[in-house]
Amino acid sequence: MYYTVSLLVENRFGVLARISQLISGRGFNIVSLTVAETDEPSTSRMTIVIDGDEKIMEQVKKQLNKCIDVIKVFDLTKTEPVERELMLVKVRADSKTRSQIIEIGDIFRANIVDVSPTDLTIEVTGDSKKVSALLKLLKPYGIKEVARTGKVAIARSMQN
Amino acid sequence: MYYTVSLLVENRFGVLARISQLISGRGFNIVSLTVAETDEPSTSRMTIVIDGDEKIMEQVKKQLNKCIDVIKVFDLTKTEPVERELMLVKVRADSKTRSQIIEIGDIFRANIVDVSPTDLTIEVTGDSKKVSALLKLLKPYGIKEVARTGKVAIARSMQN
Repeated sequence: MYYTVSLLVENRFGVLARISQLISGRGFNIVSLTVAETDEPSTSRMTIVIDGDEKIMEQVKKQLNKCIDVIKVFDLTKTEPVERELMLVKVRADSKTRSQIIEIGDIFRANIVDVSPTDLTIEVTGDSKKVSALLKLLKPYGIKEVARTGKVAIARSMQN
Repeated sequence: MYYTVSLLVENRFGVLARISQLISGRGFNIVSLTVAETDEPSTSRMTIVIDGDEKIMEQVKKQLNKCIDVIKVFDLTKTEPVERELMLVKVRADSKTRSQIIEIGDIFRANIVDVSPTDLTIEVTGDSKKVSALLKLLKPYGIKEVARTGKVAIARSMQN
């Protein structure tokens, strides 16, 4: 099962190495991870999607809470947070296939961000399912490059 | 100076821990990092923004190229790649300030993705400068939470 954990961490040297070591040291596979500064340059937020089971996940959360770099741990797995991901994908496109690809992109409200005689680069935003669905539809045309950010998530305000 | 490196890596266990250790072990600070699967489940792509100088950056690239997990290293610093970042930001908003905040969001082509009597959650996509500029404008209203993906980048097709 996939678990989504959001961490507020001190923006210290080597913090990412320590935290990724802590997680993979417990036999967990990181599906995606994003880390960037918040509005306070002294803190960063990480969103980590982990493939594992609930028992060990509880242990990882405990370890993260003990970690001196970690300010707060938010387990977003069971809430229904606002989740988004961004993907840039460069797909083969010639004069015959270009309009088909643009049409697919339109359905996903994707944007064309770069074009050449042989390919198109598309930007799309949405939850992971939407992003994966677009990628699947584009695959037959020939994917040249993909860069996905991985998921970011924020708890909804009106949970209850 | 900030360097942008894109890595194609084997989707192996502990690869993130090894690579972040390799970078921070050389005294580099990671400004942002994203990692997620590509269209091939066996490979992931990382986009890493590093704060450092050119000399040590060359060493890091050499080390990354030697790393058994790394399939390919793309240094995007001097090219002008397509760069995007996504941010979710929850900002305080009451009946008086809500319309002002929505107006600011509109200028940045941001989307309102969640609302409560006390706050708004906004999604925005763009280059890092745009995302930071919106954050700065929203700051006086009171930022409750921020989650940025960090940058993803793809080389442009028509470089020359």
